[in-house]
Amino acid sequence: MGALHAGHLSLVTRSVRENDRTIASVFVNPTQFGPTEDFSRYPRPFARDRRMLIDAGVDALFAPPPAVMYPEGFETTVTVAGLTDTLCGAPSSRGPAHFAGVATVVAKLFGIVRPDRAYFGLKDFQQVRVIEQMTADLNLGVRVVRCPTVREGDGLAMSSRNAYLSVEDRALAPRLHVSLQQGVKLLLFKRNMSPKTVTGAVRNALASTKRIEIEYVELVHPISLQALKVARRPALLAAAVRIGKTRLIDNVLVT
Amino acid sequence: MGALHAGHLSLVTRSVRENDRTIASVFVNPTQFGPTEDFSRYPRPFARDRRMLIDAGVDALFAPPPAVMYPEGFETTVTVAGLTDTLCGAPSSRGPAHFAGVATVVAKLFGIVRPDRAYFGLKDFQQVRVIEQMTADLNLGVRVVRCPTVREGDGLAMSSRNAYLSVEDRALAPRLHVSLQQGVKLLLFKRNMSPKTVTGAVRNALASTKRIEIEYVELVHPISLQALKVARRPALLAAAVRIGKTRLIDNVLVT
Repeated sequence: MGALHAGHLSLVTRSVRENDRTIASVFVNPTQFGPTEDFSRYPRPFARDRRMLIDAGVDALFAPPPAVMYPEGFETTVTVAGLTDTLCGAPSSRGPAHFAGVATVVAKLFGIVRPDRAYFGLKDFQQVRVIEQMTADLNLGVRVVRCPTVREGDGLAMSSRNAYLSVEDRALAPRLHVSLQQGVKLLLFKRNMSPKTVTGAVRNALASTKRIEIEYVELVHPISLQALKVARRPALLAAAVRIGKTRLIDNVLVT
Repeated sequence: MGALHAGHLSLVTRSVRENDRTIASVFVNPTQFGPTEDFSRYPRPFARDRRMLIDAGVDALFAPPPAVMYPEGFETTVTVAGLTDTLCGAPSSRGPAHFAGVATVVAKLFGIVRPDRAYFGLKDFQQVRVIEQMTADLNLGVRVVRCPTVREGDGLAMSSRNAYLSVEDRALAPRLHVSLQQGVKLLLFKRNMSPKTVTGAVRNALASTKRIEIEYVELVHPISLQALKVARRPALLAAAVRIGKTRLIDNVLVT
């Protein structure tokens, strides 16, 4: 979706290293935004994105207008059940329509580009799982490559939405990652806990300031993304918060 | 779905003529049958199908078991809105889930085979439109080739389900096509009619025997498949009936 940062560029750099040709898409996809979300104000620094992608070595840039992706008469939606009703897909979060928008646009991009490999960042772990499952289920013949979350020096996961943060909120934002680490410590060193013990530790750590509003903290299985009944590995510990108006997500995979 | 007849073979023969390699699939797709439909009793004369396809010149036959197409953890559905809530997609007919099953399995077959062209018979006109729209919308890069309905000498459209008909019902079955022709005559020779005049003529012609139960008779636009407000060309005149327990469909495209 453009508004590139070092996380995006790590995907491009890896693709350039591992493939003969690399194509990047820059497309702020309207169908994955809800009516109350930030589609219209989402940052679109296209000239800067273009320059960064050229400098990173892409062979082609695909930046279509919405009417090319969704012409009149467009009617098709790809849904991935099961994976999309939890975490960011819960009705109290972005909802499953968000992931229908993601799955559909990625299916289209795969159809247009026919890549051998496609690189996605694990900051959006659920998105990666949805794309992996769709790609397998529809036999799209693309290898989905998981790339590690790139973080700022203080642990904040890189995100285009970090640019929304005020100076004060930016100072609070690393607490999301720090709080998740509290839960990870429990997972690594204690046994036979309830998942609530783990998510509760994260919630407590986040509760140190009223400015951070918790949307969810969940401990789920890293394949099905369904809530674990017992806190054990492998697990994905994932959280979404709002700091002011800015929504941030992060996760840690514990294998 | 196998149980091959001359309609299917006309697709294979045309593909063999127009392409370097032809692959046929034989797969009775469970996800396109409703709970009260004929999935378990659908005919599966596989050895005969195989022989017919070899004799017609196919280079490969793909006949997977259901667990290969839908392994554990399968979660993806392709839906094509708009086109699938009318005709056979109406809640009083097979319903939209039928076409979700069709769209999803065809997307998978296209992903597995990656054909340049795919051949479909116009007896299932709505199915062809759904596949055309999905293929365009998801940029699948397949040319969908429309092939004319193949008919018996008495006008009955070839269908695997014709084999269900008793001798008496088989004698009644051509009335479906004959009745549609009554509507076509009106469309060709009269102006400014209400669509009900056309569909009413078809219904009247079908009403000559109580043994034929009408599911729908509709006059729709051949692209959108939405009901026409005025009877004018281009139009698709389509009907579904039951004769005994056997469901038959047919249509005429008037351009």
